[in-house]
Amino acid sequence: MYTLGVRDHLMIAHSFQGEVFGPAQRLHGATYVVDMEFRRAALDTDGLVVDIGLASQALGRLLGELNYRNLDEVPAYTGRNTTPEFLARDIFERMRAAIEAGELGPQAQGLTALCVTLNESHIAWASYEADLC
Amino acid sequence: MYTLGVRDHLMIAHSFQGEVFGPAQRLHGATYVVDMEFRRAALDTDGLVVDIGLASQALGRLLGELNYRNLDEVPAYTGRNTTPEFLARDIFERMRAAIEAGELGPQAQGLTALCVTLNESHIAWASYEADLC
Amino acid sequence: MYTLGVRDHLMIAHSFQGEVFGPAQRLHGATYVVDMEFRRAALDTDGLVVDIGLASQALGRLLGELNYRNLDEVPAYTGRNTTPEFLARDIFERMRAAIEAGELGPQAQGLTALCVTLNESHIAWASYEADLC
Amino acid sequence: MYTLGVRDHLMIAHSFQGEVFGPAQRLHGATYVVDMEFRRAALDTDGLVVDIGLASQALGRLLGELNYRNLDEVPAYTGRNTTPEFLARDIFERMRAAIEAGELGPQAQGLTALCVTLNESHIAWASYEADLC
Amino acid sequence: MYTLGVRDHLMIAHSFQGEVFGPAQRLHGATYVVDMEFRRAALDTDGLVVDIGLASQALGRLLGELNYRNLDEVPAYTGRNTTPEFLARDIFERMRAAIEAGELGPQAQGLTALCVTLNESHIAWASYEADLC
Amino acid sequence: MYTLGVRDHLMIAHSFQGEVFGPAQRLHGATYVVDMEFRRAALDTDGLVVDIGLASQALGRLLGELNYRNLDEVPAYTGRNTTPEFLARDIFERMRAAIEAGELGPQAQGLTALCVTLNESHIAWASYEADLC
Repeated sequence: MYTLGVRDHLMIAHSFQGEVFGPAQRLHGATYVVDMEFRRAALDTDGLVVDIGLASQALGRLLGELNYRNLDEVPAYTGRNTTPEFLARDIFERMRAAIEAGELGPQAQGLTALCVTLNESHIAWASYEADLC
Repeated sequence: MYTLGVRDHLMIAHSFQGEVFGPAQRLHGATYVVDMEFRRAALDTDGLVVDIGLASQALGRLLGELNYRNLDEVPAYTGRNTTPEFLARDIFERMRAAIEAGELGPQAQGLTALCVTLNESHIAWASYEADLC
Repeated sequence: MYTLGVRDHLMIAHSFQGEVFGPAQRLHGATYVVDMEFRRAALDTDGLVVDIGLASQALGRLLGELNYRNLDEVPAYTGRNTTPEFLARDIFERMRAAIEAGELGPQAQGLTALCVTLNESHIAWASYEADLC
Repeated sequence: MYTLGVRDHLMIAHSFQGEVFGPAQRLHGATYVVDMEFRRAALDTDGLVVDIGLASQALGRLLGELNYRNLDEVPAYTGRNTTPEFLARDIFERMRAAIEAGELGPQAQGLTALCVTLNESHIAWASYEADLC
Repeated sequence: MYTLGVRDHLMIAHSFQGEVFGPAQRLHGATYVVDMEFRRAALDTDGLVVDIGLASQALGRLLGELNYRNLDEVPAYTGRNTTPEFLARDIFERMRAAIEAGELGPQAQGLTALCVTLNESHIAWASYEADLC
Repeated sequence: MYTLGVRDHLMIAHSFQGEVFGPAQRLHGATYVVDMEFRRAALDTDGLVVDIGLASQALGRLLGELNYRNLDEVPAYTGRNTTPEFLARDIFERMRAAIEAGELGPQAQGLTALCVTLNESHIAWASYEADLC
């Protein structure tokens, strides 16, 4: 299995609902350094997992929809706790849609899996990995 | 698959038995920066892999049992080489027991796998990963 | 010159005033991984720059006053842009006060300088360094 | 599953063929920080995944065959784009051969998989992972 | 003293002249992860060391002039060994010129020093630091 | 001012004397990832701060004298607490002696300062910096 990874980041505000979150129930924020990994079983005809230029652009574009925002006010997240593990899945689905829409080029249809990791500090991170199909 | 990771560390002395270890047969020591990853297929009712507060506390508690010790004198390790790969498995089993004992809360019963990595320097690390069941 | 450094972090929400800030004028947030460095010309009688236990506790306590907060609502910051460089200075002054109050022990009176760095992502950081006197 | 990882690096020049590569079609270069991970289901009789000394030596030797070279002039790569994902696989095969030749010792025959990652910058990396058999 | 740091990178080919360089006399290459630090004694009227957007753009532009190139063929470097320490100084001078030309905005005239670090691997780096005046 | 930095590591056991050290009074150990920085005002005739090959060899040799040892039994340290800040100074003096003895080549006589940093975990480090003269 081949993997290509690229890194970008976003900076958001949010708050959590539920006693389990303790002081994180207050409005606070985070930098998420986002690692996006693309996987496939065999390289494409250029010797690539994916066009790294298109992949980085797509990641930047979809993070841009969330960047510098208060996630408590993003309609798509109403009633949800935007924990890093939840956001990892959400970003996975946004990248899956970008691939299906052809935003990463025609050869990206050969990608078989994605792994999205959100690093929230030097001591904590969350990820979501699944097959594409 | 969702993952949540937390990081802590321990500082221990030990020595190894066997010619393969060369100068590491002498009493020496290591800082192990420990990455503990928890996995599950679906998030719990709070939108979490695991309560990060309880997870960090449990990791700190179980590393505390080994921290600032000479592992050559820990009865549980008599006759064993406490290599980082051996310790990764040992810490895996200690965390599995903590989960089963309810130390990470009732929802942690839904965790399906753990991966423990011991980073011993900027150029070497060891890990153990397995399903919980 | 000797230095001892310790690392901790805080997660806050805030917004900035001024066109120069572009989209960061919106309410957003950040994780700041904080590196606190203590300096002195000669080691104390224990062979230390500072008691690392007391230093880490003091850093945790003073970051705790800001952690999981919306800095736009902290009275001390009214009318100020809480940029990372501003916060680095603010945390410097809080640590200076802690040292003067004896919170890091009597030998910490021999510290001669501090450097505070706030790492806000994998590609940006800010710091403030000055002598204590 | 147990893993042992070691890190080394190489510094090479190369160019790519194909419009998809944009400015990287020009002769340029890269530092690849190489993470080599060895996996096995059970530890060997010394409590190890693999002899870390032999593993590091083998990695250094095989990277030495490529280090400080213009890959466009390496006969084995004629007509190939030496992308990091391609090189990850190439280094995988070189390490597999070293294991089969006994260069990592007799117990290394029990290794079951390898993962090779080439980190090319703070924002991009590529890897190849497969079973040994 | 306040510092703001931003990170970017470039990927180049080059060779060195002189027996001291050993195998690095051959055409090879490097990724340089570049840390650019801006310093000033007091923050500007926006509470900033420098406009991070303009600073990042300027760094990207000037690294773009060197990126994906064989430095042996860059006329400005004829007869020079483009060691990382030499390049750190060269990039320092390019950023100094950008500041003087107003590319980082009028408030950047208050910057008092720069430090440029080129990280060439996980085990080696070079930097140049000097006052602006 | 130009700087060249190289990284290596050592793994030792030790214990500390004094109540301030708490549980670190017990025999334990550490990995110290050692960053050695060499400084000079102008590059040498090869365009270098120092010959990186000789510098790395010298660092490896002098760390080798301490590596895989119990520092409590090293005669030179009898009656001393081998804290990371103490060891940073000790390694500084060992490198100063190596430079004076010509181990880093004749051009290394032009070095003007050294900074030695011992990273002991992801959250703590110590350094010693001074002029050579």
